[in-house]
Amino acid sequence: MDIKQYMKEIGQRARKASRAMAKADTAAKNQALSLIAAAIRRDADALRAANQKDLEAARTSGLAPAMLDRLTLSDKAIATMAEGLEQIVALPDPIGEISNMKYRPTGIQVGQMRVPLGVIGIIYEARPNVTVDAAGLCIKSGNATILRGGSEAIHCNQALAKLVSEGLAGAGLPADAVQIVETTDRAAVGELITMPEYVDVIVPRGGKGLIERLMKESKVPMIKHLDGICHVYIDDKADPAKALDISFNAKCHRYGTCNTMETLLVARAIAPSILPALAKLYATREVELRGDDEARAILQGYAHLTAASAEDWSTEYLDAILSIRIVTGMDEAIDHINTYSSQHTDSIITEDYTRAMRFLREVDSASVMINASTRFADGFEYGLGAEIGISNDKLHARGPVGLDGLTSLKYVVFGHGEIRE
Amino acid sequence: MDIKQYMKEIGQRARKASRAMAKADTAAKNQALSLIAAAIRRDADALRAANQKDLEAARTSGLAPAMLDRLTLSDKAIATMAEGLEQIVALPDPIGEISNMKYRPTGIQVGQMRVPLGVIGIIYEARPNVTVDAAGLCIKSGNATILRGGSEAIHCNQALAKLVSEGLAGAGLPADAVQIVETTDRAAVGELITMPEYVDVIVPRGGKGLIERLMKESKVPMIKHLDGICHVYIDDKADPAKALDISFNAKCHRYGTCNTMETLLVARAIAPSILPALAKLYATREVELRGDDEARAILQGYAHLTAASAEDWSTEYLDAILSIRIVTGMDEAIDHINTYSSQHTDSIITEDYTRAMRFLREVDSASVMINASTRFADGFEYGLGAEIGISNDKLHARGPVGLDGLTSLKYVVFGHGEIRE
Repeated sequence: MDIKQYMKEIGQRARKASRAMAKADTAAKNQALSLIAAAIRRDADALRAANQKDLEAARTSGLAPAMLDRLTLSDKAIATMAEGLEQIVALPDPIGEISNMKYRPTGIQVGQMRVPLGVIGIIYEARPNVTVDAAGLCIKSGNATILRGGSEAIHCNQALAKLVSEGLAGAGLPADAVQIVETTDRAAVGELITMPEYVDVIVPRGGKGLIERLMKESKVPMIKHLDGICHVYIDDKADPAKALDISFNAKCHRYGTCNTMETLLVARAIAPSILPALAKLYATREVELRGDDEARAILQGYAHLTAASAEDWSTEYLDAILSIRIVTGMDEAIDHINTYSSQHTDSIITEDYTRAMRFLREVDSASVMINASTRFADGFEYGLGAEIGISNDKLHARGPVGLDGLTSLKYVVFGHGEIRE
Repeated sequence: MDIKQYMKEIGQRARKASRAMAKADTAAKNQALSLIAAAIRRDADALRAANQKDLEAARTSGLAPAMLDRLTLSDKAIATMAEGLEQIVALPDPIGEISNMKYRPTGIQVGQMRVPLGVIGIIYEARPNVTVDAAGLCIKSGNATILRGGSEAIHCNQALAKLVSEGLAGAGLPADAVQIVETTDRAAVGELITMPEYVDVIVPRGGKGLIERLMKESKVPMIKHLDGICHVYIDDKADPAKALDISFNAKCHRYGTCNTMETLLVARAIAPSILPALAKLYATREVELRGDDEARAILQGYAHLTAASAEDWSTEYLDAILSIRIVTGMDEAIDHINTYSSQHTDSIITEDYTRAMRFLREVDSASVMINASTRFADGFEYGLGAEIGISNDKLHARGPVGLDGLTSLKYVVFGHGEIRE
């Protein structure tokens, strides 16, 4: 198989389909999404059978249990995929929306129209639900998409892709608007990220290693986030009850997510009163606390206490581990965050208005919060309806990326024969 | 001189200054801009003297007359620079603006705050006015900037940079917020575009050759446009008077600008009546018309008539040359535009409502116009107040880029102790 030629043909078909998708009306896009949702429910047995093939192969090749778990398509997962599509149906169509239309002194009227990006390449690990979520978001936002899922999910993805194509065709839209890469050859990824003539943007979803590799080689812009080193800063003017609730929730609600707190900063004046109470909460989950000298002095006797090294401030644990640093006050906290944060999500706990407003303005992260758990940094929680991922880049899209992040704005001008003098 | 080390130090100073600029208040930024404008007027003689040095060196080295013209700092150019800064003072400060703030069912309030990008690297040719325009836009948008102007303007740029730094310091802002690269060594550009740790975005302003080279080598995202192959399509339902005015203006108002029409598409049904009248207008400027077979048959006898080759549809003439193609109707026109346009600016001339709306939606360009001259595609004409350039990329900024294009949006969350259940 000539991978270069194979990917080029996929790219050409996607580019062609993207033109039809860009002008597709809302009713057709919603009809496609509804048809796909119905087909997923109807063919649940066949999907599970395809998934079974993937799971057997993965077990044989010794895939890690956590990966097997993500690969598994349960009844609940199938129902959730179908519901997810129906939620996207319910969202307003972003395409064609015209904003900021205003008359200029010359007589022309100038505004901006929301338009699709074109062709979106999505590279992800062996999670079949991403296939459907990503397809749904790209269809609604009028884009064509090329999906490259983890090779372990290939049978399941092929079965899902068939349902997606049928749904598109049933609504009079091009079946090629959603294509999956049917080869498990890794060279296909190398082609996908170096065809700017056919692919407008790459959304990589996966571990830091994958994304760093793609960043080095990609000739196509990416919407991505590398890691989530999120902070909570407990100010000395914090409400202690809020500080305890939020610090516990931000660490312990889920360990493996990118919006989980990894480092807790505590103002010196409040540390002796707040840290022991907080340690009692963390003890119930046996969270390892890695403190600086001052924090360790306060936490003496905590069963899972270790010393933080310089490296800890730059580490995303994704585990029941928390680094703790005592700071003089907010200025030092902001300095620490702007130095070590991955610019994902950082929160201050304070009742002081001026400090809250300064933290909001001066912390340079995709989500900045006051008195709320970092775990809220999420497309659904923010009301975007669905998300393709979270970006901690500054250009184009920052933070949770919903339908709008898959679109651009073009200028539109209504004239009446005006010429430039 | 160790260029790598030199550029690294510039980058580090810029990164540091960007933090101060991000939190600078509107009054300080406006004060800096006003001080710079006043200093430019005050030191006009010294600026002309510095410019004289550049001009002498440039004449000695045989710079082309058009380049010499752009390099020259006339009294008018000096006044325009100062006025440009004062116009930026008058624009609203984009930074800190919070939009879309809404309560979520969990109790948190979520919105977006406009924030600077950080450090912006600008690479441009020997045009001293760009130094001041770019510095002004970056200051107002709360960014730090590193300016690399054409080496022919080095004395003038150094003199301007000194005034800019003084103005910043006078307003209590870091003088390093605007730095110019003081070496004319080309290796400095190579460093600037490969320091993503210090530079957040590159704005290249210059010819297609420069930008293509930068695109290949850059490790930093760019806001750029390569070329402007702009179209006017005269529909058979066009008002002939508007068609004549706009087609003449779009080509002949200025030949060398990126929003000048390069290809005229004419519906077959209207071509015999409109083209001869149009040719009379173009004849007054001796515009060379490169027609397809049908157009040439209609234009027989025109003094500057030649045959269009396939290559013409992809050529930006920047000259008194126009390619003309006869099309069956709007579908063929849109196909042609979406194939050959550089996605800069394209305009339809029609009185037909449905066609106008379809053209607006289906043409995939940064500016799409109805019954207006392509020459309007410009930050000032669109009411942006000033522009750093025009982007024909789709990501981040598309079309004329003003202050907003030099900013990003971060999510802000106002909580009251909420945790995620």
